[in-house]
Amino acid sequence: MNIALLGLGTVGSGVVELLQLNQTHISQAIGEQLTITHVYVNNVNKERSVDLTGITVTDNIETIYESDIDLVIEVMGGIEGTRDIIAKFLTKGIHVVTANKDMLAAHIDELSQIANQHSVTLAYEASTAGGIPVIRGIQTGLNSNRINQVLGILNGTSNYILTRMSQDGWDYQTALTKAQELGYAEADPTNDVEGYDAQRKILLLSRLAYNKSLNLEDVSVRGISRIEVQDLAQAAQAGYTMKLLGTSRLNEADNSVSINVEPVLLASSHQLAHVNDAMNSVFVKGNGVGEAMFYGPGAGGLATASAVVSDVMNIATQSQHFNFLPTEKARVVADTTAKAYYIRLQAAPTKADWVETELVNDSDRFVAVSQAITPTELAEISQDAAFVVAYPIEA
Amino acid sequence: MNIALLGLGTVGSGVVELLQLNQTHISQAIGEQLTITHVYVNNVNKERSVDLTGITVTDNIETIYESDIDLVIEVMGGIEGTRDIIAKFLTKGIHVVTANKDMLAAHIDELSQIANQHSVTLAYEASTAGGIPVIRGIQTGLNSNRINQVLGILNGTSNYILTRMSQDGWDYQTALTKAQELGYAEADPTNDVEGYDAQRKILLLSRLAYNKSLNLEDVSVRGISRIEVQDLAQAAQAGYTMKLLGTSRLNEADNSVSINVEPVLLASSHQLAHVNDAMNSVFVKGNGVGEAMFYGPGAGGLATASAVVSDVMNIATQSQHFNFLPTEKARVVADTTAKAYYIRLQAAPTKADWVETELVNDSDRFVAVSQAITPTELAEISQDAAFVVAYPIEA
Repeated sequence: MNIALLGLGTVGSGVVELLQLNQTHISQAIGEQLTITHVYVNNVNKERSVDLTGITVTDNIETIYESDIDLVIEVMGGIEGTRDIIAKFLTKGIHVVTANKDMLAAHIDELSQIANQHSVTLAYEASTAGGIPVIRGIQTGLNSNRINQVLGILNGTSNYILTRMSQDGWDYQTALTKAQELGYAEADPTNDVEGYDAQRKILLLSRLAYNKSLNLEDVSVRGISRIEVQDLAQAAQAGYTMKLLGTSRLNEADNSVSINVEPVLLASSHQLAHVNDAMNSVFVKGNGVGEAMFYGPGAGGLATASAVVSDVMNIATQSQHFNFLPTEKARVVADTTAKAYYIRLQAAPTKADWVETELVNDSDRFVAVSQAITPTELAEISQDAAFVVAYPIEA
Repeated sequence: MNIALLGLGTVGSGVVELLQLNQTHISQAIGEQLTITHVYVNNVNKERSVDLTGITVTDNIETIYESDIDLVIEVMGGIEGTRDIIAKFLTKGIHVVTANKDMLAAHIDELSQIANQHSVTLAYEASTAGGIPVIRGIQTGLNSNRINQVLGILNGTSNYILTRMSQDGWDYQTALTKAQELGYAEADPTNDVEGYDAQRKILLLSRLAYNKSLNLEDVSVRGISRIEVQDLAQAAQAGYTMKLLGTSRLNEADNSVSINVEPVLLASSHQLAHVNDAMNSVFVKGNGVGEAMFYGPGAGGLATASAVVSDVMNIATQSQHFNFLPTEKARVVADTTAKAYYIRLQAAPTKADWVETELVNDSDRFVAVSQAITPTELAEISQDAAFVVAYPIEA
């Protein structure tokens, strides 16, 4: 199988490296050779860390269109322009494997349809939770289930920051700076810490889990940049750990979906509470399996390449190519489930009987865990007391 | 697709129930109806908890051989006789989905070969770790990796017992009795607590992970029935949790495999340390992904049916049927890796400099965590001191 690789950053280089490293293993497993014949880059003169001997390196996409390739791996990023390029390859009957969550969140339904029309596969395991085979896990491992909940730690950067704040007592800024030094966070960390990266990923997982089309605007987002370390410490005393979760629920009564990204406190008995540092994990509830979880690295060159190359191998051994397409648009509603909350107020709350566990009761500071209350009730809890912060608790 | 179900115990009933519960969802996903036309049981007159309206219930396997079916689900157990029945169906060009780990551990290579000869699929996700899609996870999610380690909590009964001993301080007998009351353990718990159940499962996972045939005798086994609660408590003080692990390693230097089932102490930073009660989990190391983990219920009617029905759905949507067959027999060697051990001796050890952390040093009782030492060194550690017990530690 001849492959064109679009993009040669961290993931692209990882793909070249993994294919070289496991060449014999891969050929044996699928009964054919996977050969990168072309690489498309912005700058053909840049020094590269991987061996490109025998590979045509070009900055002209037309060269790739005209080549005799069977499959394209797209790991260059970009949205509209990249959508056009992918659509063109699919239309030519060429399979596409992509790690591009931003582009997919905007165009996956349309591109899946084009792929189906031309009997090729559009695969995207690497777009969500890096090396964790969770797209495949939902699509072929839990497909007998009606899934009603997906919870994911989907952003390694913010999970690293929250882990350090919780375990070492660092404040947000210290943890962010360290994440930047380690290469976990970019110079502008907005996408990661404000939840936009996780937003794309919970969209892609939920679309598959509930068989419903979703738009980016359907997913409300709250990040971690305003979390205070004192809240993490107080919540820890009550047995809770903070994670930035992508969460979605299918409300079976009316077939609506609730979906958001926000900081959530997890009971230590919850599997996701122990997913630390830059690791990712996706927790799924279904009406057959009950609960299942997938865990692994959410980023990194070789780890993400693991998902890319597995996609390629699975395409190589398939004879039929059909891409999942949701049968309807999701009706998205706010989550009105009753939940316990960690709350911090400037005075004791009006609704004192809604408090389950009082943690601090100073003159200007009231911290507690509430009973299971609805969002409406949460808004009422501090009618006369200045409301500071509330985090939902997942048991 | 017409299906014959062989066996109507917990899993068989779960399959009938899940197919009824998710009928619309399943037909929509695969574009056809899955219909159980025949059920094969020992006793046709027994009262059943599931609705069998319209299904032919028979105690005569010949009736099934002569029926117009496309696929057989085997959840009745048994080894040699069941192997013959499955071989006969495969030879007739009928797909087989089985949850029968005992039969597979003895005959999977032979049956996979028969299936390949007749272009049908022999699927067995439910045989290992119940509802967790880990067979598929290794086979299609991590197939780009060379895997070099598999660790699994593969038996819910013994995990429940160890969790209760650790968390509640119960002794082994109390925890076992409670497990029997809850239906987690059978009247004769040998298979579960002595590790024979986990032995089959780590064999099936390792065969797939390393592309090597394995025999049951290759997998050495040590159970949990002689574990003392004082060791769990002392290990907990040092930060370790006891789990019954199926463990296998590929020694890349000489392509040999080490594989066993034994109680292992896990550092609390290890993901498997937080898998409690009757839950199962499989942890995999590969040269692309680094580490990945799959978690979920290891038993139960609906949970195991989730894996069975997903197998059926995947067969229904495949047009090509090819079953994995290892290319060579495993060369199995004892694991000689240096590891830290929890040790309990009747006196201080001869090799005091191999001790990392001393936990207890009484007149007749010396408990410690060793440095990383080889099994040979472990045997030497207490040359003059009566050796009582040692458990390896996985960090």
